Amino acid sequence: MVNVGIYGGSGYTGQELLRILVRHPDVEITAVTSRMYKGQAVEDIYPVFKGLTDLAFIDATPAEVAARSDIVFLALPHGEAMAVVPHFYEAGVRIIDLSADYRLRDMAVYTAWYGNHSSPEFVEHAVFGLPELYREEIRTARLIANPGCYPTSVILGLAPLAADGVIDLASLVADSKSGVSGAGRSLKIGSLFCEANEGFKAYSIGSHRHTPEMEQELESIAGSPVRVLFVPHLLPVNRGILSTLYAGLTRVMSETELVERYREFYRHEPFVRIYESGSVPTIAAVRGSNYCDIGLAVDEKTGRVIVISAIDNLIKGAAGQAVQNMNLMCGFEETAGLDLVPLFP
Amino acid sequence: MVNVGIYGGSGYTGQELLRILVRHPDVEITAVTSRMYKGQAVEDIYPVFKGLTDLAFIDATPAEVAARSDIVFLALPHGEAMAVVPHFYEAGVRIIDLSADYRLRDMAVYTAWYGNHSSPEFVEHAVFGLPELYREEIRTARLIANPGCYPTSVILGLAPLAADGVIDLASLVADSKSGVSGAGRSLKIGSLFCEANEGFKAYSIGSHRHTPEMEQELESIAGSPVRVLFVPHLLPVNRGILSTLYAGLTRVMSETELVERYREFYRHEPFVRIYESGSVPTIAAVRGSNYCDIGLAVDEKTGRVIVISAIDNLIKGAAGQAVQNMNLMCGFEETAGLDLVPLFP
Amino acid sequence: MVNVGIYGGSGYTGQELLRILVRHPDVEITAVTSRMYKGQAVEDIYPVFKGLTDLAFIDATPAEVAARSDIVFLALPHGEAMAVVPHFYEAGVRIIDLSADYRLRDMAVYTAWYGNHSSPEFVEHAVFGLPELYREEIRTARLIANPGCYPTSVILGLAPLAADGVIDLASLVADSKSGVSGAGRSLKIGSLFCEANEGFKAYSIGSHRHTPEMEQELESIAGSPVRVLFVPHLLPVNRGILSTLYAGLTRVMSETELVERYREFYRHEPFVRIYESGSVPTIAAVRGSNYCDIGLAVDEKTGRVIVISAIDNLIKGAAGQAVQNMNLMCGFEETAGLDLVPLFP
Amino acid sequence: MVNVGIYGGSGYTGQELLRILVRHPDVEITAVTSRMYKGQAVEDIYPVFKGLTDLAFIDATPAEVAARSDIVFLALPHGEAMAVVPHFYEAGVRIIDLSADYRLRDMAVYTAWYGNHSSPEFVEHAVFGLPELYREEIRTARLIANPGCYPTSVILGLAPLAADGVIDLASLVADSKSGVSGAGRSLKIGSLFCEANEGFKAYSIGSHRHTPEMEQELESIAGSPVRVLFVPHLLPVNRGILSTLYAGLTRVMSETELVERYREFYRHEPFVRIYESGSVPTIAAVRGSNYCDIGLAVDEKTGRVIVISAIDNLIKGAAGQAVQNMNLMCGFEETAGLDLVPLFP
Repeated sequence: MVNVGIYGGSGYTGQELLRILVRHPDVEITAVTSRMYKGQAVEDIYPVFKGLTDLAFIDATPAEVAARSDIVFLALPHGEAMAVVPHFYEAGVRIIDLSADYRLRDMAVYTAWYGNHSSPEFVEHAVFGLPELYREEIRTARLIANPGCYPTSVILGLAPLAADGVIDLASLVADSKSGVSGAGRSLKIGSLFCEANEGFKAYSIGSHRHTPEMEQELESIAGSPVRVLFVPHLLPVNRGILSTLYAGLTRVMSETELVERYREFYRHEPFVRIYESGSVPTIAAVRGSNYCDIGLAVDEKTGRVIVISAIDNLIKGAAGQAVQNMNLMCGFEETAGLDLVPLFP
Repeated sequence: MVNVGIYGGSGYTGQELLRILVRHPDVEITAVTSRMYKGQAVEDIYPVFKGLTDLAFIDATPAEVAARSDIVFLALPHGEAMAVVPHFYEAGVRIIDLSADYRLRDMAVYTAWYGNHSSPEFVEHAVFGLPELYREEIRTARLIANPGCYPTSVILGLAPLAADGVIDLASLVADSKSGVSGAGRSLKIGSLFCEANEGFKAYSIGSHRHTPEMEQELESIAGSPVRVLFVPHLLPVNRGILSTLYAGLTRVMSETELVERYREFYRHEPFVRIYESGSVPTIAAVRGSNYCDIGLAVDEKTGRVIVISAIDNLIKGAAGQAVQNMNLMCGFEETAGLDLVPLFP
Repeated sequence: MVNVGIYGGSGYTGQELLRILVRHPDVEITAVTSRMYKGQAVEDIYPVFKGLTDLAFIDATPAEVAARSDIVFLALPHGEAMAVVPHFYEAGVRIIDLSADYRLRDMAVYTAWYGNHSSPEFVEHAVFGLPELYREEIRTARLIANPGCYPTSVILGLAPLAADGVIDLASLVADSKSGVSGAGRSLKIGSLFCEANEGFKAYSIGSHRHTPEMEQELESIAGSPVRVLFVPHLLPVNRGILSTLYAGLTRVMSETELVERYREFYRHEPFVRIYESGSVPTIAAVRGSNYCDIGLAVDEKTGRVIVISAIDNLIKGAAGQAVQNMNLMCGFEETAGLDLVPLFP
Repeated sequence: MVNVGIYGGSGYTGQELLRILVRHPDVEITAVTSRMYKGQAVEDIYPVFKGLTDLAFIDATPAEVAARSDIVFLALPHGEAMAVVPHFYEAGVRIIDLSADYRLRDMAVYTAWYGNHSSPEFVEHAVFGLPELYREEIRTARLIANPGCYPTSVILGLAPLAADGVIDLASLVADSKSGVSGAGRSLKIGSLFCEANEGFKAYSIGSHRHTPEMEQELESIAGSPVRVLFVPHLLPVNRGILSTLYAGLTRVMSETELVERYREFYRHEPFVRIYESGSVPTIAAVRGSNYCDIGLAVDEKTGRVIVISAIDNLIKGAAGQAVQNMNLMCGFEETAGLDLVPLFP
């Protein structure tokens, strides 16, 4: 049993952490903070928790939360996590940071995309929290930089190809589509029901901040420079990311061969499911679960491989992956609390 | 560990039973039948199950399924369950029938609403599977008539008032709204995405077959005749029923008094959650769970009580309630396999 | 050709007025104001208008708008219209106010539901802008109080019954369901996509401010006191209100008789469509149009009539009705600019 | 005034033709056929038309429809139009065929993608009905092959670049997303509400039948071979196609330069709207209208241009374009009946 704090728990990600952790067999939630909802019962803000928890949101300093936690999840906006990480780190609390603050190892790249960093000296302590790539480092890490939702879908989708050096890494295209919960619970015109419902659009074409994260990790796998043209789109659903990934093949490969290669690459992974040739992942088949579903197709005419990758952005793209990291850090069963069957329809 | 068969497993209800049962700690699924998908892997028809089960759909007689089952769930259309119930019953297999075939105890009422019944002699063996009303009878039952989705929301919503005799039973109004999964997975124009999406309509006004079920159970509670004007509506969501129930109060009661009465009435129920006065249930707060959430308001001007009752139609309205019944029949923890936290957003 | 100003044009209602008026054959839009979007092109804020209008939002005083308008639409929040109405009125500009500020003729009732009124002396000049009830008064009115969206659906749905004195007026129930655009374009948690999508809930049970408006008009028709228990619900669609109305019949009437009576009552109405017995209105069949569709059913068992009434809340419930009023005031064809075929699917 | 027949009018496309044509100032609809709904009033099948038309569906031979029509729209499934075209053609009736039967000029390509053709001799008479490319030919055509919905969005999106020879034509990517109405009103599991809602998936990856149509037209513009990797996706909305198009630039071009080029290319087009650099089309801004909205971005890093193209699949992607063709054929104002303002929200 570990004592767990959630710092910044009132958004969709914080709420999703609660959903998973209230049923986790090895966890005691000792604090969940929210400035906005300070003093209010969690079940009053999020009625899904009615009868499931007595927790109330508190407004507390990192020191106060650190005092009652072995491990802390930071569900704060980008730029705010970096202000509290040093406090938790010095206090000896292990940290799973769901923001982007420690994901980029090259501070120059970070600055170019995000601006100044107030605690860059901690970046070297951070482990990129994608268990499929860094399982061993995660076990002993003190600070996890939990991956972004889009990067999770893109990196898992392309990792085997990048590792094998069979695609043109200078010219990848990631056409991704995300449900609206990816924008969080903050009040923005674009997140209003009437703006998103029955709508669909691209945004941040070629300029989304998740791009360097994808390039960093794929480069690390491939050992050579990677360029991703990343175009995110806003999908009128609550949950789910589907990425359609296009890469030029540097040698002829069949779909069967590719499927086998992916199965081999992910053979020990509890949360990656590879589809047969001819069958395609959908966001509906992963909703409510920690799975990343991957399908493959080859277009012989243009010599391209098309990879389809689907996750629930709030789970494998955020809270579920964070708990998976916690399980590894604490020596729990990796799937503990995450044996969630997708909810369909 | 009990051996469980699912007879008619290819619709949404059958699939939902599978979702719950693959994670149930005390259950081994030994058969799932489907004429349409005979021979195909469950995970190929419903990709949510990818990697979660090796089951394939079979086309089998009741005798064949009985041979390998201690208990069987019938997820068949109305009128088809009555043809197989006798076989399972004679074979000594306990039955949870999710159709309407054995819900009405008065065969004249059954005939008036549904037409002929081919095995009326089994009606007397059937227990109406609403644990909040018939828990003890369910424990020893050999045949459970699992309640309809609408009746579950309406009966649970009105039971305490009916029991106390504080409402005008001759003139209840149930204005209910159901998600499209309530119509099943069969091919009907009205179930097409473009017909239901961005739409909303009433149907079967005052003539829906779930009406006599509500009247039967509320009469049984009240001990006097009950008339329900039931108007169902089709809601453009996947899951959820919200019933807005109107009843004339026969004596002055405050919201606080009513909330207390409901809390008392349902004090031992693991799946009924009563809301504070001023706060209202929503289908979003029960989605993916076995809860029935109930809220209350009083309109002093017209002397009416308004009860709002919300369930997930596929879970508390069908498969979840069926598993709750199974748990009671088998002496398992009543909440086994049903500790599902609602999925929001 | 009349010169038309829109005061407060940046919300969904203002935008809908623009949609209709840019195609109106007899109208020149001379001003559209918005403090928030001051100086920006309408087509930049609402890209639907790309290439359709050169208008830009301005921030202007009533006097400035009055100087260039024969008639002005006020699409302001409740409480703000009352501050500008006197200016337009004194300037001789005819006013169509889409807020609630002048809808209630009894100032005591207004105060009870809304609080203080800053220009109550203008209430007596206001005509309730429901053409089906006040066509002649509207033609010569200088100030129109355009009805609320819910009241439009409820009043049109019950008017023939109220007029005939065949229902119990002391105990009406209006169970209404509205699309999210009814909440406007302002930033509220409840209007976020993830909060409303796949959700459904009741709100303001028995206490919604549209209640006195319904009661006032039905009383005026019936000539005796009316009590409406009004329960609005939030529907996960962009547009549409469907009201399910319940009334006790004071004498036996058949559906056919009722349908004929409604046809007679509305025989000259271009925007009211009465359905055959057995067929029901849906919001999908009126979306994008100025129609109010009405269907009827009788429940003999409980002696109640059920009326189903469907409108597009932004059109017949707001902007379309406002233009219909303008057409009457200006002596245009009543349907000018409103010959909109519903958009389905 | 021309007499117009609609052959095969009961699907969404036929219904959309009716929506536009009942308001068209120069058209008399003389016949609308449907085997399924034979004898039933149009308003009974599609209640949007209540009070708008007295038409009833008839089951009639081509000869019977030809006898009362100057021009006929064929809204039949692929493969069925080819059986009736010869009859209408011989009878001297001008034909606008909304199926794929006459879109491909190379019969070998047709056969490879669709199979046998029963009246290939008429292909040479057919004009591809995209007014932006073939306006003059359309004016005098006797047989129009109305373009597919996806090809309309892709061809209009890439035409200026193909014409200028500034992109790598051997390796285009079209990542398109379509609303569910694109699948028609036929009964398919995948078109059910619960299957599509809250879902998103790719299908027919690299193998969709609309591919050769895109390649044919872009080749015709470019004068050299074109290869399109086309990946369609199913979007949980009623209407709309958004195509995200990726092409390698063969010379450096700025976004401003590209926007200017597109504006020049489409300067006389009433239904193509080009967006400023930095601003992107959405399906919500074209819903219910005949517009094709196009936006452009350049990714310097990978040397690619990204074109975003949005249409309403039932209007510019089908019925609206067909009416635009009719207007040209009959010498009407090109925008007659098509001055539809997009419906938002």
